[in-house]
Amino acid sequence: MRPAVVLFSGGLDSSTCLAIARADGFVPHALVVSYGQRHSCELQAAARVAKALDVPLKQVSLDLRAIGGSALTADIAVPKDAPVGGEIPVTYVPARNTVLLALALGYAEVLGAQDLYLGVNAVDYSGYPDCRPAFVEAFEQLANLATAAAAEGRARYRVHAPLLRLSKAEIIQLGTRLEVPYALTHSCYDPDAEGRACGRCDSCRLRAAGFREAGVADPTLYAPR
Amino acid sequence: MRPAVVLFSGGLDSSTCLAIARADGFVPHALVVSYGQRHSCELQAAARVAKALDVPLKQVSLDLRAIGGSALTADIAVPKDAPVGGEIPVTYVPARNTVLLALALGYAEVLGAQDLYLGVNAVDYSGYPDCRPAFVEAFEQLANLATAAAAEGRARYRVHAPLLRLSKAEIIQLGTRLEVPYALTHSCYDPDAEGRACGRCDSCRLRAAGFREAGVADPTLYAPR
Repeated sequence: MRPAVVLFSGGLDSSTCLAIARADGFVPHALVVSYGQRHSCELQAAARVAKALDVPLKQVSLDLRAIGGSALTADIAVPKDAPVGGEIPVTYVPARNTVLLALALGYAEVLGAQDLYLGVNAVDYSGYPDCRPAFVEAFEQLANLATAAAAEGRARYRVHAPLLRLSKAEIIQLGTRLEVPYALTHSCYDPDAEGRACGRCDSCRLRAAGFREAGVADPTLYAPR
Repeated sequence: MRPAVVLFSGGLDSSTCLAIARADGFVPHALVVSYGQRHSCELQAAARVAKALDVPLKQVSLDLRAIGGSALTADIAVPKDAPVGGEIPVTYVPARNTVLLALALGYAEVLGAQDLYLGVNAVDYSGYPDCRPAFVEAFEQLANLATAAAAEGRARYRVHAPLLRLSKAEIIQLGTRLEVPYALTHSCYDPDAEGRACGRCDSCRLRAAGFREAGVADPTLYAPR
């Protein structure tokens, strides 16, 4: 059984990715990067989901607040009820997926894994440049130059982005078949003190619409409006 | 005056890089990543050198010890008096330069900089795969796909590795002309409690040989043997 590193946030997409990596025949190792997100309940959700799926969870701390430049890592308000799509939103974290994949690559090298899973998708893309297929391919090329394992011919890295071309509804349908515990996952950019979803940020609205379109009951706990 | 982000460790190479970025006409911004190095005096050296060169210093914390896999981030002994060259040494940190460049890219995007400086060179390469020209070129391609600034046509990133093809002696000669305060820099992988260099690790021996070959007095403070 070959190991794979799955970048994991405890959200809907990366939880589905974890289940897909297992269905693909890998032993998934979840890597959660605590990068100064405003919503630490993301980290709690990650621990809950990993436990439910019986997957080892590795946490790395990185203080991206020192760099700032995003509503998720600096004192910039998360937009509510804004149109999805069009301009790159303020929730974009500069070079985030590059940083996350770099850490996943380092972890893969230590584990002896050659496969990285990243739960980006075309809907979440909503303007994020580091969710595009060309980005994923460029990182795969870099990975095969960047590591000792690749340089010595011991590894040929692959970056899997199995959600890339799926709609949110398709992701939820696939994950439901794979028994992803969506009730334990967390997607909201701006939860309340009890960790309940706001229902109004981009992430909440994409998620809610996905459950609606998938014809799957939405298990999300929303804050009263 | 255009800003540039210089990956900085307080060592001989990255200090020279800082001076080169300025000589190239940029306003250098030093980025030091505290990644759980065994030698925290690297961070003290970085602060000393940045102050002496009057360069703003940004520090980002990242706990690479959680990932491990290197003599610099885990409980693996730093080799002494080992032949330089040949196999990839245990001081290799998995995917380190990929992680560092990813953070520099995020910082550059926040600053509005398009130029990254990385002080890798062919001697320090000594088997490190992420010090090769092909790696640097692959990261530059990735950078131009990974960021909002590039996606929106506001930036065209360049990764400068001005030391890539210089010997240690040539680096020291160039840096001496640019008035790099080498006495303030720190290169040793395994300093003593007072921060004095061991004189025996790969890094110390490459540095000492470089001063010798350059015909420049070595200002390094060595621990008594």
